[in-house]
Amino acid sequence: MSNFWSAVVRGLTPYVPGEQPKVANLVKLNTNENPYGPSPKVIEALQTELKDTLRLYPDPNGERLKKAVGEYYSVQPDQVFVGNGSDEVLAHTFLGLLKHELPLFFPDITYSFYPVYCGLYGIIYKTVPVSESFEIKIEDYHQPNGGIIFPNPNAPTGRVLPLAAIASLLERNRDSVVVVDEAYVDFGGESAIALVDRYPQLLVIQTLSKSRSLAGLRVGFAVGHPELIEALERVKNSFNSYPLGRLAICGAVAAIEDRAYFDQTCRMIIRTREDLARNLRNFGFEVLPSAANFVFVRHPERDAAELAMALREKSIIVRHFKQDRIDQYLRITVGTDDQCAVLCKALEQILGIKR
Amino acid sequence: MSNFWSAVVRGLTPYVPGEQPKVANLVKLNTNENPYGPSPKVIEALQTELKDTLRLYPDPNGERLKKAVGEYYSVQPDQVFVGNGSDEVLAHTFLGLLKHELPLFFPDITYSFYPVYCGLYGIIYKTVPVSESFEIKIEDYHQPNGGIIFPNPNAPTGRVLPLAAIASLLERNRDSVVVVDEAYVDFGGESAIALVDRYPQLLVIQTLSKSRSLAGLRVGFAVGHPELIEALERVKNSFNSYPLGRLAICGAVAAIEDRAYFDQTCRMIIRTREDLARNLRNFGFEVLPSAANFVFVRHPERDAAELAMALREKSIIVRHFKQDRIDQYLRITVGTDDQCAVLCKALEQILGIKR
Repeated sequence: MSNFWSAVVRGLTPYVPGEQPKVANLVKLNTNENPYGPSPKVIEALQTELKDTLRLYPDPNGERLKKAVGEYYSVQPDQVFVGNGSDEVLAHTFLGLLKHELPLFFPDITYSFYPVYCGLYGIIYKTVPVSESFEIKIEDYHQPNGGIIFPNPNAPTGRVLPLAAIASLLERNRDSVVVVDEAYVDFGGESAIALVDRYPQLLVIQTLSKSRSLAGLRVGFAVGHPELIEALERVKNSFNSYPLGRLAICGAVAAIEDRAYFDQTCRMIIRTREDLARNLRNFGFEVLPSAANFVFVRHPERDAAELAMALREKSIIVRHFKQDRIDQYLRITVGTDDQCAVLCKALEQILGIKR
Repeated sequence: MSNFWSAVVRGLTPYVPGEQPKVANLVKLNTNENPYGPSPKVIEALQTELKDTLRLYPDPNGERLKKAVGEYYSVQPDQVFVGNGSDEVLAHTFLGLLKHELPLFFPDITYSFYPVYCGLYGIIYKTVPVSESFEIKIEDYHQPNGGIIFPNPNAPTGRVLPLAAIASLLERNRDSVVVVDEAYVDFGGESAIALVDRYPQLLVIQTLSKSRSLAGLRVGFAVGHPELIEALERVKNSFNSYPLGRLAICGAVAAIEDRAYFDQTCRMIIRTREDLARNLRNFGFEVLPSAANFVFVRHPERDAAELAMALREKSIIVRHFKQDRIDQYLRITVGTDDQCAVLCKALEQILGIKR
């Protein structure tokens, strides 16, 4: 450790993203990417931006994108914040809205980046255990707090809360910000954006990396009361004036505007997920009910890390978390029907299942 | 101000970027963009990336880009950090390497984002006055400090320090990090990257927004000792795993690899700058010697804000800073020869100069 490092850096435990292997021909079911490419209209729109104007700075406020999100969700552009992937939006949210004297609350089993942000910004937090069956119990959050954040559907479980439960939490939690991180909501949840006009303490964060097939472009956004958005703008304008380049803004707008493609690909993934869950149950797996583009599964007789390794030997990558309570689970991204068939065939072999 | 805001947000004074007007047909000489578009090879490379793989996350470490920068500057990839524009690289540098108990030193006249980062991260700083003629006086930095940062060439003055002066500073300042922000170095300075192998406390930051004509793509990088780079990686991996999208990485690599185009466009800008400086001096302006893609000028008989306004009425935008010591100066980006001719003609009219 170097003397040149600040005290902050010395104390950090950085996030470890899922592997992005450089080997080709893998069945990559480890980082919840969409198995279908972006809308052809996105590619077309990007084509028109590949020109001389790349020499010019983008609009620092990403107004076109705010307008597109606003139109999609029937909110005003000043209720929308845009950033370089939802991870950046989350980072600004932690610093701008979730750093208070009381501890921030989030589930013990959740997106593992949350405690990392707390480490980066010196935020005190308290984890709230999910139930035995990995459900977020809203009533456990009814205590003094400096903020609440959870993904819905939750990661890596895939379990979803109905909108009524979130509304009930908001009714009883009016003095601190509640962040609903909806990275996976389009695969089976209801967006809490429907509640932002009623609850000024609600911030909803989404990404274009999953349901809009644009993990490679890096775009995320937040929707909430203009006062919450202003806090994020202030942090952003003290960090990087231009977080979204011209291509990111243009591609994101086209993705949000092509509703038909989005609806179709989401439907296909949901259908494949249900088929995959059925097959895995037939193989003896316990499969948590999922509203996401992944399933979270456990085999009562097989060690999860060993299963992941055996799949890897067959060029299939899934995600295993070495973490208390979930170290016997695998998180498997829903691929195409073909990819899921390859996975099932491999599992049949590994588990010694005869057809 | 909302109760939901963290104490940090309440205290912020965000940076104000130069205007990005939405009106067409302006002669835009206010944000130091390159008047020439990116290399045709950049556009070609981006074309090949507009495909299905945009659904996949990019390489979180941007290895290809680190390698390209490493090859260009004859350093190893682990001496290179890459980020979403040099503003993001600067932000991580302030938090990871410049936040210490002793104050950070930077010039009083410099990039106005520096004090904003200090506000964001609670960094104590001390500004060191530049000379009457806006020169950075290296000897004034020879005192206990928690870090030193300055742009070279300096912004918004354009004045450059020779490498020998920077080496002399590094010889006497070994216990804290020295950051040289080289956003404009390719237009007439010598890069301090030549010194990184000799001085483990030196970090050099560059951007692709100016000399590589890619302000719209958002890519910046830092070069220094692997221990300094590791600090930045730790902050980055606690903030956003994937700061650079697939298009940003691919376009940036192509830009760095096309040395011929880069050399040619830099030369053209330098030649135009010298012509422009000569013309402005003939109009009675004082023109600071510039090693950047802008000139910093003052007219002894005309108020700078009024001049900027008069130019604006003629659809020409230049940058005026309402700041002590420089409020009678204008920063004018070097455009194409044609743009500079339009500027000069407008100034002739405004100043009542007869040919």
